[in-house]
Amino acid sequence: MNNMDKPLILVVNDDGITAPGIQSLVEVMCEIGEVMVVAPDKPMSGMGHAITLNASLRLSERQLPGAAKAYSCSGTPVDCVKFGTKKLNGRKIDLLVSGINHGSNSSVNVIYSGTMSAALEGAMEGLPSIGFSLCDHSIDADFSAAMKIAKEVALNVLENGMPHGTCLNVNIPKLKADEIKGIKVCRQAIAYWDEDFEERLDPYGNPYYWLTGKFCNMDNKEDTDEWALENGYVSVVPVMSDFTNHALIKDLKNGGLER
Amino acid sequence: MNNMDKPLILVVNDDGITAPGIQSLVEVMCEIGEVMVVAPDKPMSGMGHAITLNASLRLSERQLPGAAKAYSCSGTPVDCVKFGTKKLNGRKIDLLVSGINHGSNSSVNVIYSGTMSAALEGAMEGLPSIGFSLCDHSIDADFSAAMKIAKEVALNVLENGMPHGTCLNVNIPKLKADEIKGIKVCRQAIAYWDEDFEERLDPYGNPYYWLTGKFCNMDNKEDTDEWALENGYVSVVPVMSDFTNHALIKDLKNGGLER
Repeated sequence: MNNMDKPLILVVNDDGITAPGIQSLVEVMCEIGEVMVVAPDKPMSGMGHAITLNASLRLSERQLPGAAKAYSCSGTPVDCVKFGTKKLNGRKIDLLVSGINHGSNSSVNVIYSGTMSAALEGAMEGLPSIGFSLCDHSIDADFSAAMKIAKEVALNVLENGMPHGTCLNVNIPKLKADEIKGIKVCRQAIAYWDEDFEERLDPYGNPYYWLTGKFCNMDNKEDTDEWALENGYVSVVPVMSDFTNHALIKDLKNGGLER
Repeated sequence: MNNMDKPLILVVNDDGITAPGIQSLVEVMCEIGEVMVVAPDKPMSGMGHAITLNASLRLSERQLPGAAKAYSCSGTPVDCVKFGTKKLNGRKIDLLVSGINHGSNSSVNVIYSGTMSAALEGAMEGLPSIGFSLCDHSIDADFSAAMKIAKEVALNVLENGMPHGTCLNVNIPKLKADEIKGIKVCRQAIAYWDEDFEERLDPYGNPYYWLTGKFCNMDNKEDTDEWALENGYVSVVPVMSDFTNHALIKDLKNGGLER
């Protein structure tokens, strides 16, 4: 099989091109396709679906073991996807994978996550797209179980495709491969962050703040991603780019808003 | 009526505290409540749901005509909401309004928009929340029609409330108040951006890029926000923080992904 017969896989992330998570994902994607990488040149956690409108962007060619092509980009994770799909590819991309993120993107974390925004951007551009996150923030995290899961889910999506505008949010619990009980297709749990701002004084006596917070799950039902992860399963949530609350449209029309 | 009887309204935006759009919104919200402002200290368009995790934040007290309190913040629009709701308020906030944005946030633009991410963050924190956008990018845009609409929609939401986790995306066409035909409750139109990267050379011969793009509407149905705006109506889309594609869960379970 020559390279033109192998699926072309675009690998992106939000932790930056030097993160162990993306190197693990590149390594395992090389087993199933030809890999192109476009990743931020610095950590971009919590960037959500940000794009760069008020500044110009830089792109640098890089070397990543196994990847046919690799670039770092000065922009956001979503900028990286746009570069990879609109500027750099000579042929059709068959699959976009984002991650493996250092830390969970379950529940409402999907909304803040650069990893998942990159996957959603791929879905909006019509590519089968998956975001992978390991529930372990450590720089020394063991990605071996997550790599096996990534390969399994990627092969399934390559075979079955995904509807336009929908991607998968895959979270892997911090367990060894043989401790993982299985894979559950779930909905996003209802949760929120209870934030605080830690105030400090700079050397000149002026205050500055660090955003801190505690994740609060309000939804312990068995069909949620949080339940799956707490019970030793990988969670897979289909995430879509239509944010409309369709069920509320009729109520709003009846509520006197329309005229 | 003393100030404690008036609703407390948090005003945020993504164009920054000096933008004419937020000044128009503060002016009209002062007619119905006590106004507190927290807005970025510089333009933050296209920031999506970004939050500041890798840097500290600064907050400065400012003066804005009519506002009881006003602050500029060095962070993103969502950071501003978190400051306003978690750090600065002595009493319960009754309504969050974001904008008035300079330019449309209809259809998929909701996903990239700092204005709408700020409104969605409010909804996730349980506040009735609305984002307003005027379909006119000009710094000299006439906000008078948008101000009337903002007052009408805000009074409706103050009276009827909003479900937890859902906010309203209100887009106002570039028309005079008496030319606007009415208000339509809509769904987000299916559309995409066809992007390109304009390459330039810096004075040292190295390339850099500007993200450019063309909005492509693929969905001309009459129940969409794009149809409403093109036909002289204000569009109101209920936007929710549950991104799960619930309809796809069964298909994925049957597709061999679950084990």
